[in-house]
Formats: sequence, C-alpha cells, structure tokens
Amino acid sequence: MSEVLKNAQTQIRIAVDKLGLSEDVYELLKEPQRVFEVSIPVKMDDGSIKIFKGYRSQHNDAVGPYKGGIRLHPNVDLDEVKALSIWMTFKCGIVGIPYGGGKGGITVDPSELSQGELERLSRGYIQKIHKYLGDRIDIPAPDVGSNAQVMSWMVDEFEKIKGHQEPGVITGKPIPLGGSLGRTEATGLGVVEIAKSYLKKINKDPNEATAAVQGFGNVGSFTCRFLEIAKIKVVSIAGHHKGEQFAIYKEDGIDIQALMEFRKTNKNLKEFEGIEVIDMDKFWGLNVDL
Amino acid sequence: MSEVLKNAQTQIRIAVDKLGLSEDVYELLKEPQRVFEVSIPVKMDDGSIKIFKGYRSQHNDAVGPYKGGIRLHPNVDLDEVKALSIWMTFKCGIVGIPYGGGKGGITVDPSELSQGELERLSRGYIQKIHKYLGDRIDIPAPDVGSNAQVMSWMVDEFEKIKGHQEPGVITGKPIPLGGSLGRTEATGLGVVEIAKSYLKKINKDPNEATAAVQGFGNVGSFTCRFLEIAKIKVVSIAGHHKGEQFAIYKEDGIDIQALMEFRKTNKNLKEFEGIEVIDMDKFWGLNVDL
Amino acid sequence: MSEVLKNAQTQIRIAVDKLGLSEDVYELLKEPQRVFEVSIPVKMDDGSIKIFKGYRSQHNDAVGPYKGGIRLHPNVDLDEVKALSIWMTFKCGIVGIPYGGGKGGITVDPSELSQGELERLSRGYIQKIHKYLGDRIDIPAPDVGSNAQVMSWMVDEFEKIKGHQEPGVITGKPIPLGGSLGRTEATGLGVVEIAKSYLKKINKDPNEATAAVQGFGNVGSFTCRFLEIAKIKVVSIAGHHKGEQFAIYKEDGIDIQALMEFRKTNKNLKEFEGIEVIDMDKFWGLNVDL
Amino acid sequence: MSEVLKNAQTQIRIAVDKLGLSEDVYELLKEPQRVFEVSIPVKMDDGSIKIFKGYRSQHNDAVGPYKGGIRLHPNVDLDEVKALSIWMTFKCGIVGIPYGGGKGGITVDPSELSQGELERLSRGYIQKIHKYLGDRIDIPAPDVGSNAQVMSWMVDEFEKIKGHQEPGVITGKPIPLGGSLGRTEATGLGVVEIAKSYLKKINKDPNEATAAVQGFGNVGSFTCRFLEIAKIKVVSIAGHHKGEQFAIYKEDGIDIQALMEFRKTNKNLKEFEGIEVIDMDKFWGLNVDL
Amino acid sequence: MSEVLKNAQTQIRIAVDKLGLSEDVYELLKEPQRVFEVSIPVKMDDGSIKIFKGYRSQHNDAVGPYKGGIRLHPNVDLDEVKALSIWMTFKCGIVGIPYGGGKGGITVDPSELSQGELERLSRGYIQKIHKYLGDRIDIPAPDVGSNAQVMSWMVDEFEKIKGHQEPGVITGKPIPLGGSLGRTEATGLGVVEIAKSYLKKINKDPNEATAAVQGFGNVGSFTCRFLEIAKIKVVSIAGHHKGEQFAIYKEDGIDIQALMEFRKTNKNLKEFEGIEVIDMDKFWGLNVDL
Amino acid sequence: MSEVLKNAQTQIRIAVDKLGLSEDVYELLKEPQRVFEVSIPVKMDDGSIKIFKGYRSQHNDAVGPYKGGIRLHPNVDLDEVKALSIWMTFKCGIVGIPYGGGKGGITVDPSELSQGELERLSRGYIQKIHKYLGDRIDIPAPDVGSNAQVMSWMVDEFEKIKGHQEPGVITGKPIPLGGSLGRTEATGLGVVEIAKSYLKKINKDPNEATAAVQGFGNVGSFTCRFLEIAKIKVVSIAGHHKGEQFAIYKEDGIDIQALMEFRKTNKNLKEFEGIEVIDMDKFWGLNVDL
Repeated sequence: MSEVLKNAQTQIRIAVDKLGLSEDVYELLKEPQRVFEVSIPVKMDDGSIKIFKGYRSQHNDAVGPYKGGIRLHPNVDLDEVKALSIWMTFKCGIVGIPYGGGKGGITVDPSELSQGELERLSRGYIQKIHKYLGDRIDIPAPDVGSNAQVMSWMVDEFEKIKGHQEPGVITGKPIPLGGSLGRTEATGLGVVEIAKSYLKKINKDPNEATAAVQGFGNVGSFTCRFLEIAKIKVVSIAGHHKGEQFAIYKEDGIDIQALMEFRKTNKNLKEFEGIEVIDMDKFWGLNVDL
Repeated sequence: MSEVLKNAQTQIRIAVDKLGLSEDVYELLKEPQRVFEVSIPVKMDDGSIKIFKGYRSQHNDAVGPYKGGIRLHPNVDLDEVKALSIWMTFKCGIVGIPYGGGKGGITVDPSELSQGELERLSRGYIQKIHKYLGDRIDIPAPDVGSNAQVMSWMVDEFEKIKGHQEPGVITGKPIPLGGSLGRTEATGLGVVEIAKSYLKKINKDPNEATAAVQGFGNVGSFTCRFLEIAKIKVVSIAGHHKGEQFAIYKEDGIDIQALMEFRKTNKNLKEFEGIEVIDMDKFWGLNVDL
Repeated sequence: MSEVLKNAQTQIRIAVDKLGLSEDVYELLKEPQRVFEVSIPVKMDDGSIKIFKGYRSQHNDAVGPYKGGIRLHPNVDLDEVKALSIWMTFKCGIVGIPYGGGKGGITVDPSELSQGELERLSRGYIQKIHKYLGDRIDIPAPDVGSNAQVMSWMVDEFEKIKGHQEPGVITGKPIPLGGSLGRTEATGLGVVEIAKSYLKKINKDPNEATAAVQGFGNVGSFTCRFLEIAKIKVVSIAGHHKGEQFAIYKEDGIDIQALMEFRKTNKNLKEFEGIEVIDMDKFWGLNVDL
Repeated sequence: MSEVLKNAQTQIRIAVDKLGLSEDVYELLKEPQRVFEVSIPVKMDDGSIKIFKGYRSQHNDAVGPYKGGIRLHPNVDLDEVKALSIWMTFKCGIVGIPYGGGKGGITVDPSELSQGELERLSRGYIQKIHKYLGDRIDIPAPDVGSNAQVMSWMVDEFEKIKGHQEPGVITGKPIPLGGSLGRTEATGLGVVEIAKSYLKKINKDPNEATAAVQGFGNVGSFTCRFLEIAKIKVVSIAGHHKGEQFAIYKEDGIDIQALMEFRKTNKNLKEFEGIEVIDMDKFWGLNVDL
Repeated sequence: MSEVLKNAQTQIRIAVDKLGLSEDVYELLKEPQRVFEVSIPVKMDDGSIKIFKGYRSQHNDAVGPYKGGIRLHPNVDLDEVKALSIWMTFKCGIVGIPYGGGKGGITVDPSELSQGELERLSRGYIQKIHKYLGDRIDIPAPDVGSNAQVMSWMVDEFEKIKGHQEPGVITGKPIPLGGSLGRTEATGLGVVEIAKSYLKKINKDPNEATAAVQGFGNVGSFTCRFLEIAKIKVVSIAGHHKGEQFAIYKEDGIDIQALMEFRKTNKNLKEFEGIEVIDMDKFWGLNVDL
Repeated sequence: MSEVLKNAQTQIRIAVDKLGLSEDVYELLKEPQRVFEVSIPVKMDDGSIKIFKGYRSQHNDAVGPYKGGIRLHPNVDLDEVKALSIWMTFKCGIVGIPYGGGKGGITVDPSELSQGELERLSRGYIQKIHKYLGDRIDIPAPDVGSNAQVMSWMVDEFEKIKGHQEPGVITGKPIPLGGSLGRTEATGLGVVEIAKSYLKKINKDPNEATAAVQGFGNVGSFTCRFLEIAKIKVVSIAGHHKGEQFAIYKEDGIDIQALMEFRKTNKNLKEFEGIEVIDMDKFWGLNVDL
C-alpha cells in the first residue's frame, strides 16, 4: 500500500478514535466501496493502438452521489485515487453538501497527446465505466490535467450512450454547454474568505493588512483580486518565467486589476510597470499579515 | 506486479510473437478491459461488521460475454484474478466457444464463516458489481472455495435486483434451480477423452490398455467410470484415509461401478472387497499405459 | 376466506405433512408471493365508462417464471385466482417444467361485451400490471372465457409498451402470430394418454376396449379422435342440442373422422348417419371400459 | 367489504352527487387503480421463517404520483389500506398539491420484532413492489407503527435495487439522509394556524386568548410552543405519568420553552416548577378560548 | 426541396457567412439531426381504418433537449417540419434558453375528426416515436391545430408507456394537469415589451403614446390589456364579425378591461358602448405611435 | 413520389384486389410504419466535417422484427428505402419466416471513403437510430455497398451503447464474430433448388440435363458447384476479363471443383485447361436445359 493511502487511512483512524465511534465505522470507511481499473485502447494519430490505464474510486455514497475529479497525470495509480476519494468524502462532509467521495484518474501526460487522441481517450474512459456514473450515481469533474474541454467530450459520450441529455453527470463543463458561472473564481474567493476570518480572529483591520501571494495562475490571480476587493494590500507576488523563480514587490500594494489585464498579453510579471523584482529568499522573509 | 500476472503476460508475449501478430494485439491483451475491486460489508453473527474485499476481472469480450469462476480463498488478490481471467480467454478460445475471459474472487476463508455469513457475503458481492453481470455481459461460475449453494444465492440476489428471471447469468447452479446436467461428470469425461486420443495416437487398443488413477473424489471417480465404459482396465487407484496415503490394486481391473456404490457408505477404499493394498511407491512404479 | 382457497391451502398442508417438510415450507406456499387487484376503466360503446376488476396472482417463482391463464368470468374473485395459482405451481411441478404458478382473471361476462369493448378491456388489463409480466417474469395464457384473440390484444399491448417484440410473454396466441402448433389438440391427446396407461395397467388390449365420451367440443372431439387412432372403439358420445341432453350410440364404434367433418356444418349430432340416439340415463349405464 | 371502505365510498358518492358530476367519476374513484397484496418471508432471529402480509393501494394518479404512508399494525387489511388511500387523494386535492392518494401497510405488531427482524421485513416489503414505486410513480412515508428508521431501510433497499440514488422515493427519512427539516414541528404548526384562523373569525385578539392542550408529546409540545410564539397563553396541559391522568395549570400561562427543556430530562410534568396540578375533570371544565 | 426549407437553409448560409464561421457549421446546421416519418392507423368512428402521416424533426440538441410544437394541418409535410425545426433552434438560441430546435406535425384537418378520432390519432403519434421523446430528449408543445386537450392525450399516452409520471415531456398542458400559469397571456406580454422598448428608443413617454391593434383574440386582447397597464392609450382595435371587417375607435382610449368583460358574452365589438365604428382603410391610416 | 415507390404500392394494390382483402389492408401496407432520415456528421481524414444522409424504413412488424439490409450507394433516397422495405415484407412472408420488412441506406459512394471514414460513418448511423434497433425490434444486414466489415462496426457500436452483447441485432457479420456459416453459398444453393424443381416439373432426369451459367463470382461459382453435386452437367460458363466478354465451353461438362481451385490464383477463365472459348452470341444460342 502506498504512503498516500496509508495517510488517508490513518486520518480516518484518528477521527474515529477521537469521536469515539465504533470499530465498524473505521472498517466501513478505510477502503472505497467500489474501484474500477480499466484499459482504454486509443488509436493514435500514427495508426498504432496504445492502451492507457484509467481508474475510478467510489468511496462512500451514504449521503449522496459520489463526487470528485478525474486526474490526468503520468503518476496516477490505484492507491492515489483511492486516497483522494477518501478525502473527497471528508471535504463534502465538512461543508455539509449531500455528496460522497469519488475520484478518478488516467495514467497519462495529456501534453503528449494531440487533441484528437485526448478526445478518444476521454470518450474511452466513459465507455468503460458509464453504468456506474450519472447525476444520481457518481458525478466527475475536472482535476489536475483535465479541463472543461475534456469534460465536454465526456458528457457528450455519456449522453450518446444513455440516449438522453444528462448535463448534471459531470460538473466543470464549459459555460455554453451548461457549466456553472463562477467556477473559475471560486477557489480564490474561498482563500480570501478564510483570510478574512483569520484577520477578524486576530482583530486586524483589513484596510491595514498586507499580503504576499505565491503564484498568479487561476487560483493566485483571483486570490489577489478578491484581496484587493477586500481592501487588503497585496505587496508581493511570487512567480516564475522561463525556469527562473522570483517575486514582484510594491510597498503600497500592487494594482491587481491592471496586472490581470497586463498578464493577458505578457507572461513575464517582471515587465509589469512600477514594481520591484525581489528574489525568493526575500519573498519568504517578507513581514506581511497573510 | 505479482509473478502470476507476469507469467500470464509473458505467455501472451510469446504467443503474439510466434503468431507474428502486431504489437497492438499484445497491448490489447496484456491487461483486462475492466477490473472491479469492491468492499463488501457483512454483518457477522456476533453483530459486528466485517469488510471483505472482492474482485472481478473482465479480460476480453471480443467474441462473447466474459466467463469465469469466483474464487473464495484467503490469498486472492487483484493480480491473481487478472492472471486467471487472461487464462480464461485462452481456454475459451482453444475450445472455440464464444466466451471471453473473466474471473472473480473474494479474499476470505469460507470455512471460517457461518452459512448465514457466507450467504450475506455472496449476496453483497453481486450487489456491488451487478450492472456489469448478465447472461449477455459476464457469466460467473463456481471456483475454488465456492459451490452450487453460493451460486444459488448469487443468482437469487441478481434476479431480485433485475426483477426478472435470468438463470443464465451464472453457471454451476444446483440442478433443481436450472443447473446443467452432467456438470459433475464433465471433467472426468474430458480426462478420458484425452486418454482415448492418446491411445489412438500410439495405436493401442483400449481393450488392452491399463490405467492407474490418483484420487477417487468427484473427478477421479468419474474418470475411472468413463475408463471402464471405454473398456480400459483400471488396475490401481490411489487414495487416502485418516491421513494415510495408499493405493488399491487389482490386476484384472477394479469394478468401478461397484466401488462407486461402496464409496457412498464407506470412505475407506482399503475395505473394498477383492482388492490388494499397495503403498504409494509401488503405485507410482506401476507399468500401466495411462 | 373462500372455500376454494381453503381447499388449496389444506392440500398444501397435507402434502407438507406427508413429505415431512418443515413448517417453513407450508408458510412459504400457503399464500401467493404477489397478488394484483386492479380497476380497469373501459369506454363502452355507448360512451359511458365502466370499471372492471382484474386480478393476477403470482404464487411462486422459485423454479421459473409464473405461468397461468387469465379467466374472464362474472364470478372471478381474489380468492379464486389465488387458489388457482397455487394449483398451477403443483401442475408445473408434477410434470417437471421450470415454471411457477400464476393465474389471473377479470370479473366480467365476456359475452356481454362487444368486440371493441373486449379489446379495450384486454389492453387495459395489461396496462395495469405490465411491469410484472414478461417472458422472464410471468407468462399468461387463455383460460375460461378468454381465447387466442384476447391473447393477441394482450401481446400487442404489451409489446407496444415495451417497444420490442416479446411473443413469449403470452402463450395461446393465434398460430400466425407465433402461437404453438398442436395446442388445440393437446388436452384431448393427454386424456387418451391417461386412458392408454389405464388399459395397460388393467391388461386390456386397446383393440378390444370400448369408450363412451361426454361432449364433442374442442376437448371431446380430439379425445374421440385420438381414441380412434389408438384403435379404441368409441361407442357412445353424449351431447346436447337446443337445450336437450342426449347421446349417440353405435355398437361397433362411431366413425370419428366422419363425425368431425359432419360437425363442421351441422351442430346436431342426432342427424349424423348410422347412429342410434339414446337418453342420458342409458349413456351413464353403458358397459364400457373407459 | 369492511365498514371503513364503505364509508370512504359513501363519501365519494355524496361528493359526486353534490358536485353534480357524472356517474363515470364515481365509478373511477370508488376503487383504487391498483392494489398489491404480497407475502413477505422474514427469517426470524430464532432461525424460523415467518410470512407477513403487506399491502399497497394506489388510488388515483391523475394529477401526480401516488403519495401515502405505510402503516405497521396487527389489524391492517386490504380494505383498510384501500379506504386510507382514497382519503389521501382527497387530502392532497384539498391542499392542492400535485399528488394522488396511496397507502400501504403490513399486518404486524412492530413492537414484537427485533430491530433485525424489522429491518428484514422493511426491505422485503420494498423488494415485492419496487417496480411501481419511485419519485415519479408512488412515494411512501411513515405512518402508524413505522418511523424514520423504517424509511431509511426502505430507501436503502430501493436504491440498492435501482442502482442509483433516489431519496425522493420516500419522505419522512432521517434528516442526515435527506429528510426534510421541520417535519417534526409541522403538525403542531398546522394546529396553531387553524387556531389563529378561528380567533380571527371570532374577532378575538390572540394576546388575550387562552388555551388548554391535551398531551405534550411531539404534536402537543410544538402546538404549545407555536401558541406561545403567537402570544396565546397556554394555561393548562393534560398529561399522564405511570398510568395516572392529570393536568398542570398556571393562570398567567405556562412557560413552554422552559417546560420543553425540563421535559428532556424529566418525564413527569407534575414536577415542573411553578405550576398547579389539577384533575382531568377540572381540565375539561376550564373556561378557555381554545 | 420545398421553398420553405430552402429559405431556412439560406438563412443559415447568410448567418454562417456573416459570423465568419467555418463551412462545417453550415453543414451541421443545414439539415435536422433526425427526422421521423410515421404512419398512424386510426380506427374511425365508422369502423374503417384510416392512415395519417406524422412527422417529427429534431434539428439540433447541442445545448439541450429538442423543443417545438406539433402542428395539425392538412398541408404539413416533411420539408415544412424540417424548416420549422431549424427556426426553433434559432428562436431558442436568441433568447438564450437551453433547448434545441424541434417540430412535429400530422397531415390532417383536425376539424374533420370527432373527439374520439382525434384522441386515437394523438395517442398513435406518441406510440410511434416515444423512444426519442422525454423531458431530457425532446419536448413537444401545441402548435397550429393542436391544443391543451391534444397535449393531455399525448402526455397520458407517453406516461402510460413509460410507467411513470413525466409531465415535463410536453408543455402546453391544461393547468390542472401541470400546465404553466401565464402561458395564455405570454405572447401579448411579449408584444408589449417590444413596444415599450421601441418607445424608449424614440424617447416617447408611454403616457402620451397611442396604439392601434389588429385583432382581439387571445394574442390581441392581452396585447391591449398590457398596453393599458403600461398607460399606453389604445385608440382603435380592428376586428371582424360575420365576415365583415371593421375597427372600433375611441380618441381618448378604449377601456380594455371593460371590453374584455363585454367580449365574454358578446362577440360583436361594434356593440360595445361608447365607441365609434370605422372602416379598415381609416384604421390603417390612423396616426398612432404603435 | 418516385417510380420505385409507386411500383411497390401498385403491387400491393394488385395483391389486395386479387385476394379480395379490405381497403384497410391496402391502407396499412402502402406506407412503412416508421421511417428515419438522419444526418450523420463524419470527421474526414483531412479534418473537415462532412454530413451524410442515412435512412431506415420499417415497413411492418406484425409477424416479427423488421429485417433488411443497409445499402451504401450515392443514389439512395427516402423513396427507394421505403419501396425496398415493402418488398422485404413480401419476401419474408413468401418463405414464411417470422420477420417484417425493413431496409436502410446511406447516400454515399463507399469507394470514395477511407476505412477510417467508413468506420466512423457506420458507427454514426447506428448512434442515430439505435433505440429502434435490436434483435427483438429491427435487424439490419449487408446490402449493396456494405459488407461484413461494416456490419462488425455497426454491431460493435450497438453493443457499446447497450452495454451488453447482442450479436443477433445484425446478420451478415464475419464468421469469427458470430456470423452464420453457409451465408456465402446460400444464394447459389437457392438457384439450384429452383432448377431442380423445374427439371422435376418437366420430367427431365438431372443426370441427363445440361446447364449454361452466366458469371462465376460468388453466386455463379456456387451455382455451378451445386449443379455439379446434383449431377447436372455445366457445359458453359460466361465470364469477362479485362473488359472482354466471353464464355468457356466443354461438351461433357466442366469440372467445377477444379475450376474453383484454379480461380483462386488465376482470374482469367480462358486459361483453364481443357475448355474451349466461345463468344457470347454462341453462349446465348446454346441448346441447354437450364
């Protein structure tokens, strides 16, 4: 058993013991209820056939359908999706939404596939396990390496097989095909909500707080933007360009809206106007509130 | 990967190379198309809940539904059922019947369970995977540790869920519930058919051939009986009683029908009339044709 | 509880006791597993709506799908179909065919309905219970008051709802729509088989045996015909015409083939040539073997 | 036909006549569209098998799925569930919700069963009729003798058979498994709403009204609480303790919130502070508005 | 190909060209994805069987289920329903609702059928294509020649076949059977919304605007009523009575609510009090804003 | 309406009149019960998307599932498949097999597609109409332009969608995938059976009969072979090579088995040993019995 799965099981162990629950509960939760391991044959663009391994772990559906992403990564294996599906049960339980934990994956580096190959792989994954998917059974979503386009192919294949529309079978679809508004911004918003709770707890006025953020991708940029909206000054942002790690810095706060606009055409944060470039050691040593 | 699965894959490797088939064929056959790993909770007679691990490997359904037994044994694991399912594809292919390879298992020592516990375990196994079973999808059968009674429970659970009769979903049922006549005798008959082919090949008249058979259980007794029907003299049968190994011997052939009748009430072959008891060394040194 | 159901249960009681079976078996068999009582609204030809009561009793499906007729008669009630379904389980078991007992009925005098009303009633019956019918679930057939035409409507309604052909859902269909050949003659043939067994038991040569038969409808005429084929002399046949009861008699045997031909155009047996007409008292006093 | 069913039919008769509806309407409503009578075998804790009779009456689904409870009581019979299902059609129609009338029952005294036996009985009931249940077909609920735990088993069995989540198939589930909030308080709230309408009709200011309530269980306690919220003084509450009937009384109104808190640890209302104990004769003679 | 279908395709051609979309898009949109042509046998009241032709065109379901009416008209043919279904895709797209285009029709003059014949025809239409209808597949509605009653029969037939309630399969049902409130008024409301946008665009105060409306049926009367609610004066309404065309006129605005009330009992608008009757030439020459 | 459909309808007209059947029968048979017209988008090898039109006409399923080929030809249109499906009903009826008439087609020249494009087209056809296909609904087969390979793709797509094996949904599959033995020889055998009936009718001894056969492809060669088996002398066979038409001739009969063997490696019949080459005029003037 891999470390990641052992960790997940140890956490259940601790939780069950702390809550004084019976041994039965531990037994019921330590392993997923159902796991698929499937072989997905894909006709590659050069005419050969390559087989990819796919997984889907369905941990526990006591309170609702399984829910969790599909990860496309070369290191995905059986134990990893099992562990991740256990954590999804916890995540759903903590926020009190009526879903159980699920997680899937395909052992593949998606960047090495053409769009055609990726589409055939995505469709093939659904063909192998569709009987245990559905908006009342198990609802996948994007995860590392997959995205809205992959979800579109998967929904389309699922609906083709079922013979009816069932957009709720997969979340994270493109907006025009029934995706939810706000999904892109959601994680950044969540980070800032936690930050605000923390400031409240330490009695710090947001207007006087400062923050440093590592990364300016999807999550990072929206985190910065929601900090700005909350009047929290973002003084430094760590990034990288062509393999080099660095941070940009501005004492009285970086203009995030401007930076997001700038970023659309220029990937190198260093070239943003009015900022100072600092090294990562200095970044980690910054005296900020968040 | 365990040795048993490596062996199975190596055999495919060799076969593909010998037949000059393309690499694609090896890729397609080296792993099962779909494998289930499920957790089956069973309420034990003492009121506690115990979780058992169950597996079902569906290797290849290109020519027909998956077909293969369900093994109940404490050492069953994922790789073993995968390897066994690969071999089932080969077995079906060699005799040319339109089925593909499948194999299932539950990690359990069935002798440690009460009948009630075994029933609940058998039913639980079906509940977890029933959507990919059926007389047009995958058809289990008994294997090591399971038997006609276990198959009855499984068929009953399957039919309860589906809401219709589908006895063909599982073979090896008891005769009154739709099991096939002749299943008990079948293996012995197959052994004798091979023996007859061998005699034909070496140009030996069956009437003049002699045979020694190890064991007089289900397979052994019917082997002897079909040899007798084929006019092949069975001169010795090895058996055991209360831990002792030995063989019985009669130069002009043992009366098998009489022995089978005798066996119904008396388990000790030594006490059968008109035979001589010999030790195993002598048994293995017998000068027989078969 | 009505007499008929009490009788059926008493028979189970006796059988269970004689066979030394456990009380559980009696409990399991004394009542059907499932009974439907439905209201079937029919738009009558005069525009009004009339509600008919329909029943279907499914006694036991342990060895195969439920099987039994649908009776259309003004006295049909819940207890009657229950009792009849119990007897169907016994009938199927005695001849060893893999079906369980079922029986249905509609409380109606079919002779008072127009063809259109009868069709709408037949279709309405299927609409109410179709989810528990099917060639793998429960297989109706004609019974008192219903016939091949009624079965056609029922199959058609069933297939319309299911969206596929399933002629095996109902037996007793017209031949061109998949009915079985020989169904009409079958009962008469069975009667004669029993007669032959009886003669054998009493060591009477069929060539020397004589028989008297009551009735010359579907069952009676074929009974006579199969007796003739078996060289058993039919010396008298009881019939009725315009309310009068009587019998025809011929000492050296009535020519059955000729009588069947005659009957096609002339319903009055008295007018058949070469026979003598006798009264019923004399008929019952005849000295015949069968 | 039993009295209860005759009563229900007489009511339809009266309603149809008063509304001047056609005879067809009476014909359509006087009997349920479909009734099930099933035999449910339960393996008892002592190893024997006992058969229980279950019923489900589906009266009319013209405006929506059938809806109605499942009663567990030793006197439940076919006619009772028929009558109750007729009344459910009326209840749904009066409040204008899009459901039709249904009602089920099992002839059993649930207090004589162990939890294990009750679970097996509940699951067995669903197994027999599941094809005509569903959130779009027929939606049971608890009734006399059944409760949220029984509903949980039934939903679980239903979802196990269907292979997907369908919590809407049964209402009255425990809150954590998807039950509706407020179900416990609902009846009490309804009682008080009617009380308020009455006061309004007689032009009585709620602030000046007084009430006496019989019982302080689920319905009684919430009735008192909602009266208190509506500023209606509850001056007396009748209760019982160890077989003795009595009432508590306080002229300027009992503090209901405090009494509900007190009741959690002390079942004897007499011991609540600041109240006077009166006998039942006095209780019934109280000069109160409600 | 008929003119109407050519027109629809030309419009797609123009749209694709203007938007600079690829040729593939034109190819995908120029023809429906699936079209049914079915023969519906109807038993006429005189006992004969007449065959009617029915159609259903499902143009494109990329963003949601197909949606569109069922037209009953003697001129309906394959090309017309194709063209109409193309336009439905556009209509849904313009207002941004997640449905694709569909349209059906039956070649029949419904006024020549009795109610019984029309019911059998409506049910027959559903029987032929039900597998590709459903609230997640294709959702019909009334159109020229069909109405809420026809929709009721169709929903009932669909639900009878499916064995569950699915009122969402067809819109435009009668209110008591789940139809939507406001459907009758909706078109008139839409007309007035457009009128108000127009006034805003030309900077005209609604209080000072005047309108003339042609027709006072379902659409016309609600258009007038919503204009009145918007304080826009309706000075003239064109109508007809016994073949004569005319308009009524009142300079300071017709009292619409009163007119609607009047209309319930009197079909001749001329007789409404306080108005002036003008001829159509004058009507068309009126100097009004709308 | 095209000529071919008019012809088919005229034949029904004539048949109905000759048999004295009611007008209803003509009405029921003159048009198919259900026809599909679908658009099949295919991603071509050059990346563009091309739309193909597909059809399926289901004429009449009164006696069994629809049955008929799928034609791939550039001239296929709606009326052609309708007419062909009518003829299939007749064909099945004449030989008395329980199937109704069906026929499908795709408007395409299959020789202009790559194998990949043809596969995607074949699969797309099934995706559009699969709900009305099945071994109990409608059973396609190869026809002009399609073959066993096309059928394999179609069966595979169908089974992928249904999630179970259903090889009976399409006939004409390759033997290893469940195709029927003898399909290749069947037409030739039928021709010879008719020839033998003819000889019997004219009282000609087969041993003395002679035959001339045009063509030596699939049908021709097996016709010759079965003639030879029936002892009928084949004296001449017409063929062509590189655009030239000719016949081979041998007075005492051509050795067909030898010729079939020869043909495997040599396409030019002229080079077969021991025969004489004659021109087509002479071929048509031959004095043969068949």
